Amino acid sequence: MTTKGRLSVNEGAAALVEEMRRRASELRIEISKGAAGETLIDAGSAVPGSLEAGRLMTEICLGGLGRVTIGSSPYLSRWPFTLTVSTSQPVVACLGSQYAGWQLTHGEGETSYFSMGSGPARALAGKEELFGDIAYGDKAEQAVLVLEADTAPPEALVRRIAEDCGVAPEALTIVFAPTTSLAGSVQIVGRVVEVALHKAHELKFDLSRIVEGLGTAPLSPPHPDFITAMGRTNDAVIYGGRIVLHVTGPAEEAKALAEKLPSSTAADYGKPFAEIFKAYEGDFYKIDGMLFSPAEVQVVALETGETFRGGSVDPKLIDASFD
Amino acid sequence: MTTKGRLSVNEGAAALVEEMRRRASELRIEISKGAAGETLIDAGSAVPGSLEAGRLMTEICLGGLGRVTIGSSPYLSRWPFTLTVSTSQPVVACLGSQYAGWQLTHGEGETSYFSMGSGPARALAGKEELFGDIAYGDKAEQAVLVLEADTAPPEALVRRIAEDCGVAPEALTIVFAPTTSLAGSVQIVGRVVEVALHKAHELKFDLSRIVEGLGTAPLSPPHPDFITAMGRTNDAVIYGGRIVLHVTGPAEEAKALAEKLPSSTAADYGKPFAEIFKAYEGDFYKIDGMLFSPAEVQVVALETGETFRGGSVDPKLIDASFD
Amino acid sequence: MTTKGRLSVNEGAAALVEEMRRRASELRIEISKGAAGETLIDAGSAVPGSLEAGRLMTEICLGGLGRVTIGSSPYLSRWPFTLTVSTSQPVVACLGSQYAGWQLTHGEGETSYFSMGSGPARALAGKEELFGDIAYGDKAEQAVLVLEADTAPPEALVRRIAEDCGVAPEALTIVFAPTTSLAGSVQIVGRVVEVALHKAHELKFDLSRIVEGLGTAPLSPPHPDFITAMGRTNDAVIYGGRIVLHVTGPAEEAKALAEKLPSSTAADYGKPFAEIFKAYEGDFYKIDGMLFSPAEVQVVALETGETFRGGSVDPKLIDASFD
Repeated sequence: MTTKGRLSVNEGAAALVEEMRRRASELRIEISKGAAGETLIDAGSAVPGSLEAGRLMTEICLGGLGRVTIGSSPYLSRWPFTLTVSTSQPVVACLGSQYAGWQLTHGEGETSYFSMGSGPARALAGKEELFGDIAYGDKAEQAVLVLEADTAPPEALVRRIAEDCGVAPEALTIVFAPTTSLAGSVQIVGRVVEVALHKAHELKFDLSRIVEGLGTAPLSPPHPDFITAMGRTNDAVIYGGRIVLHVTGPAEEAKALAEKLPSSTAADYGKPFAEIFKAYEGDFYKIDGMLFSPAEVQVVALETGETFRGGSVDPKLIDASFD
Repeated sequence: MTTKGRLSVNEGAAALVEEMRRRASELRIEISKGAAGETLIDAGSAVPGSLEAGRLMTEICLGGLGRVTIGSSPYLSRWPFTLTVSTSQPVVACLGSQYAGWQLTHGEGETSYFSMGSGPARALAGKEELFGDIAYGDKAEQAVLVLEADTAPPEALVRRIAEDCGVAPEALTIVFAPTTSLAGSVQIVGRVVEVALHKAHELKFDLSRIVEGLGTAPLSPPHPDFITAMGRTNDAVIYGGRIVLHVTGPAEEAKALAEKLPSSTAADYGKPFAEIFKAYEGDFYKIDGMLFSPAEVQVVALETGETFRGGSVDPKLIDASFD
Repeated sequence: MTTKGRLSVNEGAAALVEEMRRRASELRIEISKGAAGETLIDAGSAVPGSLEAGRLMTEICLGGLGRVTIGSSPYLSRWPFTLTVSTSQPVVACLGSQYAGWQLTHGEGETSYFSMGSGPARALAGKEELFGDIAYGDKAEQAVLVLEADTAPPEALVRRIAEDCGVAPEALTIVFAPTTSLAGSVQIVGRVVEVALHKAHELKFDLSRIVEGLGTAPLSPPHPDFITAMGRTNDAVIYGGRIVLHVTGPAEEAKALAEKLPSSTAADYGKPFAEIFKAYEGDFYKIDGMLFSPAEVQVVALETGETFRGGSVDPKLIDASFD
């Protein structure tokens, strides 16, 4: 008798949603029913939210398959508090769930809504090509979607999301917080391992070989301006993030991965993210995608026991960005 | 439907008291019934107690609204283990519960009893002016009181405490540990965020603007001498503590707070606490109250995204105190 | 009424075994029934296992009486992730349970089986002299055994183990993972406090005086070669481990302990462990037993409040071993 179950990121997230509900007052979040019957968790838009709400939101993003802790570490001496993420299911947790890859749009013009969906619900809908590549899909009776957004989606879009997930709107929970909020800042910095996985995928590295992900990055101070806030959270990872991945397969491929993975391989590397963004006149898609990755990467090749390295953290740039 | 519940620090502490009970042997604590029917938890007086009992005691002090972890950090190189406290409800957790502000006295002369009550029960009794200032009061059927003390209070005082809390003595739990004990040392160092909140209040900073509290301080080695023990735990915070507060409201006020908040603004700053105490011939109230604060302070002004700084840790003084 | 219960390391481990079962897929472990009816948990032999499985395995080794966390710390700058262990019951957790002291052998020649048993089951069997010295024995209806091994024991040996533990084979759980595996590497590094306790015992220090154990060591990268893997995990502790013990009794004895305890007191100290092992032609028992200890030791004498120190971490040797 073996107990080799299925991994369900939506079931994993459900217990964390329950925890958010129980601790709603402490977390300064607001839980309500939306027009379609969905559960809405505002973690930082009309309510202040909190760092702890962001920490839980990050664990929800990981589908309950990773641990996220706020701790103290002096590796960036002026920014003493850091976020640490660890997962023994990096592909399913980070790409199958956390990655913001589900394009959600509704309407046009002034009343239009646009957001990139992240979190477990993506693995029910399976709308992205990525799910074929990682060979993962979830089945669950409850769906949990996470949005880096100011507002919840309009009713029609919510109904479509639920339908795509194969659940009734009443079985859908949407957790949202804007980039500028406390929770939003945590949940973006909490992508320190995810961005590496995504870049590894872009680099055509065989994802089934990545078996462990550990990452740490400084907690960036929130900023009320959207671009600056986005800049800081990205800089926390791009210039302050450190990760270790354990991979199977040929060591030379692990070595190549360690060399290509750090943010420093990107053409745009070297300036605060907000500056880069402005230089491209706000056209996100002109930014070299290779920039979205941790500063410092270690790849342990399990085949040979070698550790390969690439990149390094840039404390000065972190200071320039966070100050 | 919103779920905006009430914060109850006594309910939050009850689950932690239950955990103490379940783990009593491991924690080397003793749980008994007192003369008035109250539950007494001796965490370090007649029994050895433990660091872990102190960690739980600190979380009880915070009314279950903060997380306290013992970890390793090399920021003070000779003292590798640190305590980290984080709370997204710093005012209620630290001032509404953790602060030792409830003066408990009974009798006179040799048989007299005196202790400053801390922990959730304070928020039921509401005897201190502070509760008006922070607009918080608790309602709960169980009360939990924490004392930095060698002995439990005499029966008559216990009855008065219970009455003040509006509960039967049977519904009152008193957790106590002396300054010199393992648990006592942890729970005092665990005040690294609380002392900053209290000083901010003294500085007339609008407390409703402080929305996050993160702090870290070295675990000070316990000492059998009361004054030395008190000195070390205070030095851990005053010369070794680091905190970040996130505040709303005008940035200039955040800036002023960061400048005024560190312990270094106090006249008495610069010598080990035990020395200062002795210089005042043991008269606690002659010590400049501004000394009770962390060494290093960062205040993030959420309004502008700026981080303001004040003070710095003093590794030499920590060595002088702990060695 | 006092609640001074008995410490049961097997009961403490049972809840962690249950957690392993619930999270089996996430942890990449396999749970099956063995020939005698025992529960087998393969955490890294026929299945990949994971770092998180190793973390849980370490907490199982400690009989639920210690906390094991994977975090980030820059004290060894090239190895950013560390394991931290804390226990307020160091003697029972580390020597009464975690120490690999139960010699398990079966048969001879090619089909023979040999492994050193560790974990809670040891405290039910009580086969080692050590249990008399520490005056601890467990009583429980479930037994949990941990093996650093490639394979589970043969049926006859399983039956003998169960009998020695006083339980039916169906009530025995065996968790195993080889030295070369992810989980194996974590559970060995997780012995950073245990080896100190064991060496203290060898040094004839009165164990009943050791009341707290805190330790940290770098997560060593796994290696597919058994000797190299064994070397790295030992080096993580011997050259990279840091601990603090709190002890009662005469301060001069605490001082002597701090001086004698570090690995640097061993004749063989100074070279990577795998090299030493090879120099003795693989004869483990020729290695100076004093080598098995953390690099850096602090002993806090609770009697006087003094902290005594010995040894220091050796980042260069860690690099030489891990690279």
